[in-house]
Amino acid sequence: MTDVVEQRIAGLQAALAAHDLDAVILGPSADMLHLIGRKLPLTERFNAVMLRRTGRPTAIVPRLQAPLVEPLGGLLDIVVWEEDRDPMALAADWLDGARNVAVNGHLWSRFLIALQTRKPGVRFSDASAMTAALRLCKSADEIAGLDDLGRRFDAIWDAFFTSGRLVGVTERDVVGQIRTLVLDAGFDELSWCDVGSGPNGASPLHHHSERVIQPGDPVVIDFAGTRGGTYMDTCRTPVAGEPHPEFRAIYDIVAAAHDAGNAAVRPGVPAEAVDAAARKVIEDAGYGALFLHRLGHGLGLDAHEEPYIVRGNRLPLAPGMVFSNEPGIYVPDRWGVRIENIMVVTEDGLRSLNAATRALVSMS
Amino acid sequence: MTDVVEQRIAGLQAALAAHDLDAVILGPSADMLHLIGRKLPLTERFNAVMLRRTGRPTAIVPRLQAPLVEPLGGLLDIVVWEEDRDPMALAADWLDGARNVAVNGHLWSRFLIALQTRKPGVRFSDASAMTAALRLCKSADEIAGLDDLGRRFDAIWDAFFTSGRLVGVTERDVVGQIRTLVLDAGFDELSWCDVGSGPNGASPLHHHSERVIQPGDPVVIDFAGTRGGTYMDTCRTPVAGEPHPEFRAIYDIVAAAHDAGNAAVRPGVPAEAVDAAARKVIEDAGYGALFLHRLGHGLGLDAHEEPYIVRGNRLPLAPGMVFSNEPGIYVPDRWGVRIENIMVVTEDGLRSLNAATRALVSMS
Repeated sequence: MTDVVEQRIAGLQAALAAHDLDAVILGPSADMLHLIGRKLPLTERFNAVMLRRTGRPTAIVPRLQAPLVEPLGGLLDIVVWEEDRDPMALAADWLDGARNVAVNGHLWSRFLIALQTRKPGVRFSDASAMTAALRLCKSADEIAGLDDLGRRFDAIWDAFFTSGRLVGVTERDVVGQIRTLVLDAGFDELSWCDVGSGPNGASPLHHHSERVIQPGDPVVIDFAGTRGGTYMDTCRTPVAGEPHPEFRAIYDIVAAAHDAGNAAVRPGVPAEAVDAAARKVIEDAGYGALFLHRLGHGLGLDAHEEPYIVRGNRLPLAPGMVFSNEPGIYVPDRWGVRIENIMVVTEDGLRSLNAATRALVSMS
Repeated sequence: MTDVVEQRIAGLQAALAAHDLDAVILGPSADMLHLIGRKLPLTERFNAVMLRRTGRPTAIVPRLQAPLVEPLGGLLDIVVWEEDRDPMALAADWLDGARNVAVNGHLWSRFLIALQTRKPGVRFSDASAMTAALRLCKSADEIAGLDDLGRRFDAIWDAFFTSGRLVGVTERDVVGQIRTLVLDAGFDELSWCDVGSGPNGASPLHHHSERVIQPGDPVVIDFAGTRGGTYMDTCRTPVAGEPHPEFRAIYDIVAAAHDAGNAAVRPGVPAEAVDAAARKVIEDAGYGALFLHRLGHGLGLDAHEEPYIVRGNRLPLAPGMVFSNEPGIYVPDRWGVRIENIMVVTEDGLRSLNAATRALVSMS
């Protein structure tokens, strides 16, 4: 771990130089987790890891949270603030002499404005592009970790398809079934679980309800979990009982769109081309207006991160990039279907991190 | 609901005038929830509710999320952006002519910086003090809602004390027991559940582990849930089997500190005096150095909000303010104890929203 942290500190310092920045401030975020291997609590108590082009990082933490970074004392300097002190003054002091400073994109504005007020001569910018670039192509170790999460999700889907219940239970009950499977599979949390049965499946915004699932209902089930700070996220749309032939038809279109998205992936292809390839299948089938969202999003230490697989994103894909492929068709007042796997770009194409069946599953 | 939203819009507009602000921008946050009764998703897709001193609010939302605000179309204008467009340009356009603009304190810096870059002539400030003041004294309806959550928590503790298991199970298992009770009690989520048994209880930072709880272990159990966006949060420290006499002694000190904190509360008293009153009991008993945190935090649409019950906070308490009273003693390598109830300030003192026993409970 120490080696990785040192390597990442060096990488971020090189990026500071390349971006003509004197320093970067990372509050609790995936950026902080990526740099030092842990994420401090995101609360009203300011804490951050701050780094200049040379030297060790400095962590500013409230006394209560100091034990969380003390194990890293060999790698960074620690400034502890007492509960009745102003940590922003300490952070501003640390900035003395700096002119160009980036902050992590998710830093709360109240903290940024407090720094801007204290340091009117400093130009503050958004570190997002810089940190996203550092997190964009996953290392072999990171991919191995994601692979492990993918296999755990496979086992969850297998167990759910085999022993789960849909007919006659509520959407809320399905959330409970998935929660138990996800926590039992060793995840730290169920980050979300959206269950949309029948007409509720027609909204990608639907979370869950007390609706009782009826025979013939397709059920869009989209869930994510984290383990050690890394996300996994998939979606399937099994049917309660026998599928309606019209549903089977749109299911097959979505599956074909998913395949077409995958087939478009290779290093150098712009992200938007993958969206376009999948979308074309759905448009050609006449359902373009009912595919309501982009094809996918990157995933790793954030649930949504670069590369976004969306029209307008010309970012060329490269080996190690990880993203979701999740086309859908949403028929108002009737039903919805979405199929999602997480993909990793390889030297010659891509590989799915998920192997749970994508065939239409009928459940009792 | 419409009446409440209109009232809150008027209240915020009065505050804009009082603070010499032309406009305020509220991203997804408790501030947004307070203003319009709902919170849009906080993701990389920018959305916000924006308000000037006069006129209706404007919501900027991505196409995908438009259905979430369309029901409010009678109260606010809606600007929808397509997935491949730049929403920050739309927000900047909306700011034309404004000079002094506040943003909610939790707005991501990337969005603020994008606005600052597009609008160099605008002075952006932190809306936190203004919005905190509007949310600080809860209305009768809000207090009724919190009372309902308090009674649900009472039932959870009663069920746990009666039928829960501590001896021989893991801390993780206790989290599972609490999760089931909280979700069955109608909460939308278990926001957190920290379980620290024996020596693990000596750290207020401990979440949970696979440690098997031993006879005689005190177990610090601190959990929170939300229902309809409002938080409830309590802590108790039952003992697995028979309590050690030395533990009973520090338990009684913490209970006395809790009582002393309550006794110090009445309108006009500064928040820090309540912390001081509780702390004095623990200091006088010789454990001051082992009470590692402030006495409490406000609670409502955020888990932590004003009034913070902490040294240095001279804010005078007033009827309708709601906060936690949660003293603790943490004995390294041995055990910890914390007792937490949520209090509401009344005309002549305070009232607890929680009625679960504060006596030392022994569980099997």
